[in-house]
Amino acid sequence: MLPSWNDTESKKAIIEFVERIATEDSTDFVPVPERIAVFDNDGTLWAEQPTMVEGFFTFDRIHEMVANDPAMKETQPFKAFLEKDVAAIHALGKRGIVEFVMKAHEAETQEAFKELVTDWFANAIHPHFKQPYTQCIYQPQLELLDYLRANGFKTFIVTGGGIEFVRTVAESIYSIPPEQVVGSSTKTQFDLKDKKVQVARLGELRSFDDREEKVVNINLHIGRRPLFVFGNSDGDLRMMQYTLSSDGPCMAMLLHHDDAQREVAYDKDFKLSPLNEALSVAKDWGIHIVSMKNDWNKVFAFQ
Amino acid sequence: MLPSWNDTESKKAIIEFVERIATEDSTDFVPVPERIAVFDNDGTLWAEQPTMVEGFFTFDRIHEMVANDPAMKETQPFKAFLEKDVAAIHALGKRGIVEFVMKAHEAETQEAFKELVTDWFANAIHPHFKQPYTQCIYQPQLELLDYLRANGFKTFIVTGGGIEFVRTVAESIYSIPPEQVVGSSTKTQFDLKDKKVQVARLGELRSFDDREEKVVNINLHIGRRPLFVFGNSDGDLRMMQYTLSSDGPCMAMLLHHDDAQREVAYDKDFKLSPLNEALSVAKDWGIHIVSMKNDWNKVFAFQ
Ligand SMILES: [Ca+2]
Ligand SMILES: [Ca+2]
Repeated sequence: MLPSWNDTESKKAIIEFVERIATEDSTDFVPVPERIAVFDNDGTLWAEQPTMVEGFFTFDRIHEMVANDPAMKETQPFKAFLEKDVAAIHALGKRGIVEFVMKAHEAETQEAFKELVTDWFANAIHPHFKQPYTQCIYQPQLELLDYLRANGFKTFIVTGGGIEFVRTVAESIYSIPPEQVVGSSTKTQFDLKDKKVQVARLGELRSFDDREEKVVNINLHIGRRPLFVFGNSDGDLRMMQYTLSSDGPCMAMLLHHDDAQREVAYDKDFKLSPLNEALSVAKDWGIHIVSMKNDWNKVFAFQ
Repeated sequence: MLPSWNDTESKKAIIEFVERIATEDSTDFVPVPERIAVFDNDGTLWAEQPTMVEGFFTFDRIHEMVANDPAMKETQPFKAFLEKDVAAIHALGKRGIVEFVMKAHEAETQEAFKELVTDWFANAIHPHFKQPYTQCIYQPQLELLDYLRANGFKTFIVTGGGIEFVRTVAESIYSIPPEQVVGSSTKTQFDLKDKKVQVARLGELRSFDDREEKVVNINLHIGRRPLFVFGNSDGDLRMMQYTLSSDGPCMAMLLHHDDAQREVAYDKDFKLSPLNEALSVAKDWGIHIVSMKNDWNKVFAFQ
């Protein structure tokens, strides 16, 4: 059970919690349909260093766009993305980046966008880990997702990343179907041409799924308070507090990237998505801190 | 199989379709995760005459609100709702009604609203059928939902009604969990007080889930094109066209309320939610018309 997790407090706490809510004569028993687990994606299920996967996708898209329209080259934030100037990109803020990323492609419909993303994932390689991005996912988390599902949980992703971007691979890499992915999204529009309906992408942001908005979107998409939540940054604190203010049993976990050897050690200084406030209030709210270094005996399957 | 359906073309078409997409060596085989079925609710799964169930809920809520603030009595649309003046209410239009209904309660949070709705359903009786509203659901459709699920379909509701209102009963009456209900919604907001997080309801409409917006919301919540769609009005035409413009196998059904004896006979003259355009383009798009009178041998379980 959970072989890539060491036998430390974190693993014990997970198993104790799951057994408690799944035991029929326990006072904390929770019926299967209410076993909702939500996971952040960037930095919780897959690596987000030196920048988000969707950022790398955008780098590559932009090169193709600039080839079609060279004047773009000198305008911002195209220039920053073209030069992979991570500092300048991070200075846009997470929302600014998400807004730009949502526009920085040439797909007019959701289906065309899905094709672009699918093709990209089939070929792109992570610059640091030298693996396909779909391999840069945390093995212990795959085991945890499986373990929760084996115990009746329905597993959801609640990500600040683009909902369509993540949906493209969530089913094949995490066994999480598109309808269980919640994320940032662009406005869209019904489009009927030549007797074919498409969902057209408009450039404008509809929802930036971060912080408070994660709670709003969990309510919109899922309609119940989660029982279990896993995140890695301040962007996840609100959904942890939402989960933890349930009247029934509940559990929140926070991944601390403290493993410079097997991955990257970072927290409050990662401007794009800092871990700071959540760490400081963790004890007070009863949030379990997972140490990548101490709690996981394996990070990636390829290592 | 489908005992409340007569052995007419409609039933044959459903079974033929389901067997075709579920047979592994069929060229039209569809893998289980892609078997998405969407159903409208008002007039498709439960009765909507003389007006929508949510309208009756609003009548009752308003009486309680007016008792607290008698000045309301003379303002519109409170007056129309108080007097159950169906013509005046329908004159507001479906969107206007949904906007008003979203505000006409005194629940500040989604959980408080859910409690109000749950209590109301436990006690309220349909004025025409003299049954709890949760009994005014179409028996043949319950059998169809079960049949589809038994064949690997995931069943969703896509309703113009309020998402929280329908979620409150969808699981117990249709076996459709909250996360598989898509509908109209109010804006909401994260709220943290006394170490407890709630999702606060704001009075303003976020999404009016009708016509084109049903397609937009199917994409947002489900993220794939449905394989099967069932509706009963022009409000469902767009999601039928979306389903039917799939490159793969697909099926759309339209319920025609032509049974004055067991229910109510109506179509284009029902101002709130007319069936007119969808009926006239049905043949051209290959939409199957289901006759309540001829295709169903039972309408409600209580009859
Ligand atoms: Ca994250
Ligand atoms: Ca309807």
